[in-house]
Amino acid sequence: MPAFEPPAFELPGYDPDSAVFKIHEGGKLTVRSTLPLTDREALSLAYTPGVAQVSAAIAADESLAATYTWRSRLVAVISDGTAVLGLGDIGPAAALPVMEGKCALFEQFAGLNSVPIVLGTTDTDEIIDTIVRIAPSFGGINLEDISAPRCFEIENRLRELLPIPVFHDDQHGTAIVVLAALRNAATLTGRTLADLRVVISGAGAAGVACAKILLAAGIGDLALADSRGVVHGGRTDLNPVKQELAGLTNRSGHTGTLESALVGADVFVGVSAGAVGEPAIAAMATNSIVFALANPTPEVDPLIAHRHAAVVATGRSDHPNQINNVLAFPGVFAGAFDAGAHRITEAMKLAAATAIGSVVAAELRPDYIVPAPFDERVAPAVRLAVAEQARRDGVAGELP
Amino acid sequence: MPAFEPPAFELPGYDPDSAVFKIHEGGKLTVRSTLPLTDREALSLAYTPGVAQVSAAIAADESLAATYTWRSRLVAVISDGTAVLGLGDIGPAAALPVMEGKCALFEQFAGLNSVPIVLGTTDTDEIIDTIVRIAPSFGGINLEDISAPRCFEIENRLRELLPIPVFHDDQHGTAIVVLAALRNAATLTGRTLADLRVVISGAGAAGVACAKILLAAGIGDLALADSRGVVHGGRTDLNPVKQELAGLTNRSGHTGTLESALVGADVFVGVSAGAVGEPAIAAMATNSIVFALANPTPEVDPLIAHRHAAVVATGRSDHPNQINNVLAFPGVFAGAFDAGAHRITEAMKLAAATAIGSVVAAELRPDYIVPAPFDERVAPAVRLAVAEQARRDGVAGELP
Repeated sequence: MPAFEPPAFELPGYDPDSAVFKIHEGGKLTVRSTLPLTDREALSLAYTPGVAQVSAAIAADESLAATYTWRSRLVAVISDGTAVLGLGDIGPAAALPVMEGKCALFEQFAGLNSVPIVLGTTDTDEIIDTIVRIAPSFGGINLEDISAPRCFEIENRLRELLPIPVFHDDQHGTAIVVLAALRNAATLTGRTLADLRVVISGAGAAGVACAKILLAAGIGDLALADSRGVVHGGRTDLNPVKQELAGLTNRSGHTGTLESALVGADVFVGVSAGAVGEPAIAAMATNSIVFALANPTPEVDPLIAHRHAAVVATGRSDHPNQINNVLAFPGVFAGAFDAGAHRITEAMKLAAATAIGSVVAAELRPDYIVPAPFDERVAPAVRLAVAEQARRDGVAGELP
Repeated sequence: MPAFEPPAFELPGYDPDSAVFKIHEGGKLTVRSTLPLTDREALSLAYTPGVAQVSAAIAADESLAATYTWRSRLVAVISDGTAVLGLGDIGPAAALPVMEGKCALFEQFAGLNSVPIVLGTTDTDEIIDTIVRIAPSFGGINLEDISAPRCFEIENRLRELLPIPVFHDDQHGTAIVVLAALRNAATLTGRTLADLRVVISGAGAAGVACAKILLAAGIGDLALADSRGVVHGGRTDLNPVKQELAGLTNRSGHTGTLESALVGADVFVGVSAGAVGEPAIAAMATNSIVFALANPTPEVDPLIAHRHAAVVATGRSDHPNQINNVLAFPGVFAGAFDAGAHRITEAMKLAAATAIGSVVAAELRPDYIVPAPFDERVAPAVRLAVAEQARRDGVAGELP
């Protein structure tokens, strides 16, 4: 276990000579033709007049677009730049380096093509309209870094409107990996998910999605806390998503602070920037599990958490048990594409979590409850599990 | 001069074993990362946490996006699928193979990145709104295969709304190459543009743009004909674009058919599918110039045209003097990007035409008035000329 170095709260400023800025020069993506167009004959096949045959065939039978264009395996990585990393609402231009990086990860981890699209609007209806209108260009929509609660409505309405997979990674990528890690942590400590009482700190995109997937996976009990304390039915300040969760969670009836709910709890999942003190961690049940996922600054110093918890995970690459979305999203989209899935079902997300956890199931240790990001077994396992579940769910092979 | 083979009027049907369909399998483009993301350190520079520094820097100074993202040299190739090749309104999915091919040409001829975006709407306002909202993702907008007269309003309004180059290639690409070819044909036959009376058949995207660029270049006189005859101020059936041109063209006062206007004319430019009979070509002035550009079936068989005309050009790759947009658009965007131009001015288009024509000025023959599409001298010459003109026009280096 390396010593925990508290990260700087201020980012280094603009330094064109630093390694980070040097490697970003010119951006991080390039589009290449898969065919050489170096002579007249090649041009006449790949472009006019030959391409007219392909266009005419697709006009007569749109399902041929899946074979004769790149779109059926192409992900749009779309952001409005409102919730980028820990930086917040920085706008589309500043979000673009993150989206380019995400596209690079789609290639690196699943061999998929993807294109970053950053939007010059933060209006929910305009975002939905825009994505619907450009959707014929793509095989799947990965929503990224869109602030809550708009992200919930945007994803839900796009799922209704579009015949292709729509997946808000900040929600479901995180939730899938949290579930995978938590199930392994439970196994390691001699319990099942049904035995666990969980407290989630943060009711934004990640917190809400973690709550939903843990409920779907059969968690014992779960309470969600936002900056005003535990979400419960007696509160009048809840947005519709939190209202819905108030009815589905918190069977223990907590109404107070995050810290009060943590007393005797088995699991802490932190997906906010709110710090949690050592006394609150110490007050949890024995064999507690602490996922302090805020990045770059975990809600509790992992070294402090280790004094009390049996298993600790963070979002940081310099610590063991890194909860990293990259374990999920490449395989989720690749599997959906393999199956020709027109949507990503809840069962497909659960299947992805099971696949991720299974990769390391035979090797579990307190500092090894999830695979490392570069574990090459992960994406193929997720891909296969997601494609198989899509077929079982009857959403496969129905693309237009 | 090869024998002219009348092209088939019906496209071959869908044949998955044919060369055209075989090479289109999986589409024609791929997106690649320019950085290897194969270990944790690379990931921490190109993605989190390093990328946050780049995003924060751009949030503080958006002009840095030109250096640290791919967008300042990225073209969106956008179509609504309403006027695709000779196929007409075939929709976005069927248009996609053409747009992928166009993107491949941007790479092949100018080394530029580009992304095909096909739209699920044909509504003018919706198209404009959508493009404005996705524009922060791109450095330039190449509009493609959008039917007239909507294409004029869409391009004009986008030019007003966006701080990046907007270029409808079906208009201006064709017009630039026509001007280049016509100037060389005039030189070859001992005349200047001011000596020529031109008749253009077709008042769609290409016809209107050809008329405008020829007027800007100082053509002697010019009449435009649509399917109802010559466009003139006495007609009550003209759309606003044709009304405008009625006031700018046709100083000879023609009011009849295309054929009547061709009597004694020096130049025929055909950019429609309407056939023109041999008598009309025979009735033109001596040393006439015939550009029969309809594809795949020229308005007049080039062999027949050669009986009467001094110079003949077509749009076909199997004939000499091919008027091919690929001579223009790659260099136009590359030059605009080199200069950081926020728009493409009329003078930049004229400069592109001059550059294209100049490449072969010392080698002119009746069957060689424009460079061949694969002439490697063309794109660099256009690029340089366009960038220099952008700087002269004061539109350079003003990108956000």
